[in-house]
Amino acid sequence: MHVGLIGLGNMGAGLARNLMKGGHELTVWNRSPGPVEALVAEGATRAEKPADAFQTDVTLSMLSQDEAIEEVVVASGALDAAKAGCVHVNLSTVSVAFADRMAALHGEKGVGYVAAPVLGRPDAAAAGKLNVLAAGAADSLAKARPLLELFAAKVWEFGEKPSRANVVKLAVNFSLASMIETLGEAGSLAEAYGIGRADLYELMTNTLFSAPAYKTYGALIEDGTFEPAGFKMTLGLKDVRLALAAGEAQRTPLPIASVLRDGFIEAIAAGDGEKDWSGLAGGAFRRAGRPLG
Amino acid sequence: MHVGLIGLGNMGAGLARNLMKGGHELTVWNRSPGPVEALVAEGATRAEKPADAFQTDVTLSMLSQDEAIEEVVVASGALDAAKAGCVHVNLSTVSVAFADRMAALHGEKGVGYVAAPVLGRPDAAAAGKLNVLAAGAADSLAKARPLLELFAAKVWEFGEKPSRANVVKLAVNFSLASMIETLGEAGSLAEAYGIGRADLYELMTNTLFSAPAYKTYGALIEDGTFEPAGFKMTLGLKDVRLALAAGEAQRTPLPIASVLRDGFIEAIAAGDGEKDWSGLAGGAFRRAGRPLG
Amino acid sequence: MHVGLIGLGNMGAGLARNLMKGGHELTVWNRSPGPVEALVAEGATRAEKPADAFQTDVTLSMLSQDEAIEEVVVASGALDAAKAGCVHVNLSTVSVAFADRMAALHGEKGVGYVAAPVLGRPDAAAAGKLNVLAAGAADSLAKARPLLELFAAKVWEFGEKPSRANVVKLAVNFSLASMIETLGEAGSLAEAYGIGRADLYELMTNTLFSAPAYKTYGALIEDGTFEPAGFKMTLGLKDVRLALAAGEAQRTPLPIASVLRDGFIEAIAAGDGEKDWSGLAGGAFRRAGRPLG
Amino acid sequence: MHVGLIGLGNMGAGLARNLMKGGHELTVWNRSPGPVEALVAEGATRAEKPADAFQTDVTLSMLSQDEAIEEVVVASGALDAAKAGCVHVNLSTVSVAFADRMAALHGEKGVGYVAAPVLGRPDAAAAGKLNVLAAGAADSLAKARPLLELFAAKVWEFGEKPSRANVVKLAVNFSLASMIETLGEAGSLAEAYGIGRADLYELMTNTLFSAPAYKTYGALIEDGTFEPAGFKMTLGLKDVRLALAAGEAQRTPLPIASVLRDGFIEAIAAGDGEKDWSGLAGGAFRRAGRPLG
Repeated sequence: MHVGLIGLGNMGAGLARNLMKGGHELTVWNRSPGPVEALVAEGATRAEKPADAFQTDVTLSMLSQDEAIEEVVVASGALDAAKAGCVHVNLSTVSVAFADRMAALHGEKGVGYVAAPVLGRPDAAAAGKLNVLAAGAADSLAKARPLLELFAAKVWEFGEKPSRANVVKLAVNFSLASMIETLGEAGSLAEAYGIGRADLYELMTNTLFSAPAYKTYGALIEDGTFEPAGFKMTLGLKDVRLALAAGEAQRTPLPIASVLRDGFIEAIAAGDGEKDWSGLAGGAFRRAGRPLG
Repeated sequence: MHVGLIGLGNMGAGLARNLMKGGHELTVWNRSPGPVEALVAEGATRAEKPADAFQTDVTLSMLSQDEAIEEVVVASGALDAAKAGCVHVNLSTVSVAFADRMAALHGEKGVGYVAAPVLGRPDAAAAGKLNVLAAGAADSLAKARPLLELFAAKVWEFGEKPSRANVVKLAVNFSLASMIETLGEAGSLAEAYGIGRADLYELMTNTLFSAPAYKTYGALIEDGTFEPAGFKMTLGLKDVRLALAAGEAQRTPLPIASVLRDGFIEAIAAGDGEKDWSGLAGGAFRRAGRPLG
Repeated sequence: MHVGLIGLGNMGAGLARNLMKGGHELTVWNRSPGPVEALVAEGATRAEKPADAFQTDVTLSMLSQDEAIEEVVVASGALDAAKAGCVHVNLSTVSVAFADRMAALHGEKGVGYVAAPVLGRPDAAAAGKLNVLAAGAADSLAKARPLLELFAAKVWEFGEKPSRANVVKLAVNFSLASMIETLGEAGSLAEAYGIGRADLYELMTNTLFSAPAYKTYGALIEDGTFEPAGFKMTLGLKDVRLALAAGEAQRTPLPIASVLRDGFIEAIAAGDGEKDWSGLAGGAFRRAGRPLG
Repeated sequence: MHVGLIGLGNMGAGLARNLMKGGHELTVWNRSPGPVEALVAEGATRAEKPADAFQTDVTLSMLSQDEAIEEVVVASGALDAAKAGCVHVNLSTVSVAFADRMAALHGEKGVGYVAAPVLGRPDAAAAGKLNVLAAGAADSLAKARPLLELFAAKVWEFGEKPSRANVVKLAVNFSLASMIETLGEAGSLAEAYGIGRADLYELMTNTLFSAPAYKTYGALIEDGTFEPAGFKMTLGLKDVRLALAAGEAQRTPLPIASVLRDGFIEAIAAGDGEKDWSGLAGGAFRRAGRPLG
C-alpha cells in the first residue's frame, strides 16, 4: 500500500520503520527536515508539502495538538488535494470537539477519517508495542487496521464515531495523571512520618498496584528529577484540560480532574513546565514544605 | 506458643484457623458468642473476658476502630492484667495519633506493642495471603513475625515505631479510594460519549493498569450494585478521614483526599453508607445525571 | 454625538433610553426586531445591518459572548465598514484572549476599541446606576466616557489595555459565584442542625457581610426557586470558565473557581441550566440529601 | 449580680471592664497572673482556682479550644463545685460535638449551660460592640442575656440547644475564610494581568461587596504582611476543621471548606502558622509564583 506519514516527532521514526518493515511504500512529511532525511536514507520518499503525503491510500498523522493539525492538514490545502479514496488516520491526542469537526470536514471532502490515538512511549512505538485506540467508519477502519497492527500490541476499537477514540484516550491520560498525583500525596504523607516514598511504592507495586503505570511512574517519582521529559508537563495540562472540556460539553463534572489541572498550573508556575508530567507529584511534597530534588 | 486473638469479625475466623494450623494454642475472645463457639469446636479456648486473651505469649487484636480498642483492650483492664512479657499485635486500621498513644501506654505497662495492619479481604485472610504491614520494637516484632507469616503472603516491615505501619496502611487505602473515584470519573466521562465503562476498564486493566486493585474494583463498578459490602462506605470515609488527620498533624495537605472525603459523605447522604466503598464511584455518574443501578 | 447601539437584550433598552435622554442621536441594531421597534417609536433610528450602527462616532455593543461578537461585528463586515474615527465600546463580558484579539483587530482597521463590561442588573441599567469597568487607549476612553456616565453610578478605569477591564469583570463575577456557593454551604450546614438558612443570612447580612451582593443573593437562596433567572446558570458557568482560562494563560491556579465550575456543571446536569445562577447554592443542599424547593 | 469570668486572653479585659461598668461584682481567673492583677486593681476579685469563679450567679468562660475548657472547667473540679443555680456561659468557639457533651454534663451537674460565641475582634469587645450568638435553655439564657448585652451590639438567639450557636459561629467563620481565599484568588488573577489587587478591592468594597468583612480583610491582604495576627492561622485551620467535622457528623459535604483546610495547612507548612489567618490569601499568589511580602 502507499502510505503517507505526517509528523516525525519522537514517535514518528518508530512508526515509519514499522510501516516500511511491513512492506509499504512510505511518503513522509515533517516541518523540520532532519527526521525526513534519516528516513529517506532508509527508503522513504520525501513529501515537499503536506498535500504530497495525501496522494496515498492511507495517510497517518501524528502532530502535537489541534492547532497544528488545523494548519498542516486543513489550512495547507492538503485535505482538499487528497487522492480519491484516501483515508486519514489521526494518531494525535486532540480535543473531542476538534475530532468531531475533523470528522465532519473529512466527510465533506470525501476523505475517510479514523481517530487512532495511541498509548505508549517512543520505545513502544519503535518496538511495535503500542496500544492503539481506534474509531471510525467500518470501511475506513478496515483499511487502516493492518497498518495500525504493524506498530500495535493491540488495536482496540471503539465504534464508528471517530471522537470516541479520543474520549477514551483522554479518560486514560486523566487516569494516569490522577495516579501520579495520588502517588505524590501518598508518598508525601509517608515521608511526613519518616517512611521513604520508595518503601511505600515498593509495597504498592508488588501488591495491589502491580501495574506497569505504577511501576514506571513510581520510579520516576522516586528519582525526583523529572528530567528529561518523556511527556511534558504542559502536555499533561493540555490533556487534563481537554478531558475537563469534554466533560463539560456533556455536563459531566470531574472533580479530581479539576484538582489535577490546578496542580499542573502550579507546577508550571513553579518553573517545571518543561519537565516530565510525573513532576505533578512534586507538588504534594512542595506544599508540605519538603520539595523534592 | 500460646496465642490470644481478640475480635472475630469477617477476618477473624481465617486468621484463627491459620494460627491453629501453625500448631499454636489459641485463646479467642469476641463480643458476640457465635464466632467463638465455631472456633472452640475446632480446638480453640474461649476467653471469658478480654483479659483472659492477654494471658498468652502473643495477643493479636482485630477490631473496627480506635474506640473499640480503647474499650476492649484498655478500659476492660485487659492490658493491666497482661501476662509478663506478652506482646500485643494490633492488626486494626487505627489513627496515627491513637497508635502513638497505644505504643506509649503499652510501654508504661511493660507490654510489647506491634502495629500490623493488613491488606486483603477475608478470603485472603483464610488463604493465608494477606500482606501484613508491621512495625514495632525489634524484639517484639521478632516474636510476632512467625505468627504473622502464618496468614501472610508477605510481611512488610516499616521500622521500630509502630504507628509507621498505620501510616502506610492509610496511604494505601487512600490510594485505593483515589483509584475508585478516578475509575468512576473516567467511566462517567466515557459513558457521556456512549462508550460503556466496561469497555474502558477492559482496556485499562489489560494495559497500563493491569493490577489486582483495578481489576477487582473495575468489576465492582461495572456491576454497579455495590452490594454486599466487602468494606463499607462508612469505613472508607473513616480511613480517608484518618489519612487527612495524619496529614494535618504533619502539615501535609492532601487535596485529592479532601475530594474523596466529600464524595464519601455525599454517598452516605444519598443512602449508600452500608454499601461497599467502591460505591464512591457512583457519585461521578450521579453528579452527571446518569446514576448507576 | 451620533451613537450606535448593538444588542438590545435585557440590558439594552435601559442603556438606549439613557443615551437618548443624554441628547444623543441613536442608531440601534438587534437580531430580533421587537426591541428595535419600541426604541424607534421613542426616536431611535433602525440600523438595517450591523454596519449601519458603525456609521457613528461611538458604537456600543452588548452581546452575550465571544461568538456573537465575532459574528455580528467582524464576520458581518461591520468593522471593515466603520466610519473613520469611530470608537467601538464593547460592554459584553468576553474572554481575555478574545478581548486581546479584538483590540488588535480594531487597531488594524483603525477603529478605536474600549472594553467596558458592567456590573449591575437590568434595573440598574435603566436607572443609570451601573458600575462600568473601562479600559482602552486614552483618546478612545475620553471619547466614550461621557456616554458611559449616562448609565453609570461610576466609571472605573483600569488602564490602556482593553482586556484588563475584562479581567476585572471576571474576577468580580468569580467572587460573586464563590459567595453564592459559600452561602449555600454555610446554609446547608446550619440547616443540618435545625437552624433555618434565613436566620443565618439575617445575621450575616446585618453584621460582617452587610453588602448588597449578600443581601440580594441571600434572599434568592432563601426563596430557593431560582426562577425567573436574572442571570442564567449557563452564563455563570461561562464566566467561571473564562476566569479559569484567564488564570491558566498566566499560570495562576484558582482552586475555588475549579470547585465552582464543577458545581455549575452538576447543577446544569440536574436540569437547572435555565435557572438563575444563584441556584448554584442548591448543590450544597442536594449533596446533603436535603434538596431545596 | 455576682459574675465569674474565666480566661483573660485578648478579648477578656474588654469583657471584664464592660461587666464591671454594668455594676456587677466580678471574680476573674486566668492561667497566667498578669491580666488578673490589672483587673484586680480596677476592682475585680482574684479567683485562686477555677472553682472559685463558679461560686457565682453566672460564670462566663472564654478559652481557646475544647481541650482547654475540658481541663479548666471539668478536670479541675470547678463544675462539680459550682454554686447551686449557677449558669455557665461559654463564649469560646468549640466543636459541635464538644458543645453537646458539655450541655449534657452541665445538665447532670445541675448547672445551666449557655453557648454564646461572639463575632468581633478585641477592640469590639472593649467597645461593647460584639455580636453575640446565643443558645440555651430559656431560663438560663434569660439570666445570661443582660450580661451579654453589656458587651454586645446585638445578641442573636438561636434556640434552646446550646450547640446551635456554635454551629452558627462555625458557619460564619467558614464564610470569612472563604471570602479571604476568594479575595486572594481574585487578586492574584488581577495581578497576573497587571491590575493591582488594591484597585480590584477598591472596586469591590465600594460596590457589590461593601461590607465590613471585605473592607477589613481586603486591607489586610493589600498590606500583605499578615502580622501581627489578630486571629492566628492555626485557629483559622481549627475553625474550618470544626466546620468540616460538624458537616460530616450530619452528612453534609462542604467542598469549599475542604479547599480552605488544605490552604491553611499549606500556609502553616510554609511557615505562616503564627501569622493572621488572612494570610490564607497569600497562597493564591504563592501558587502562581508571585508570593506576597
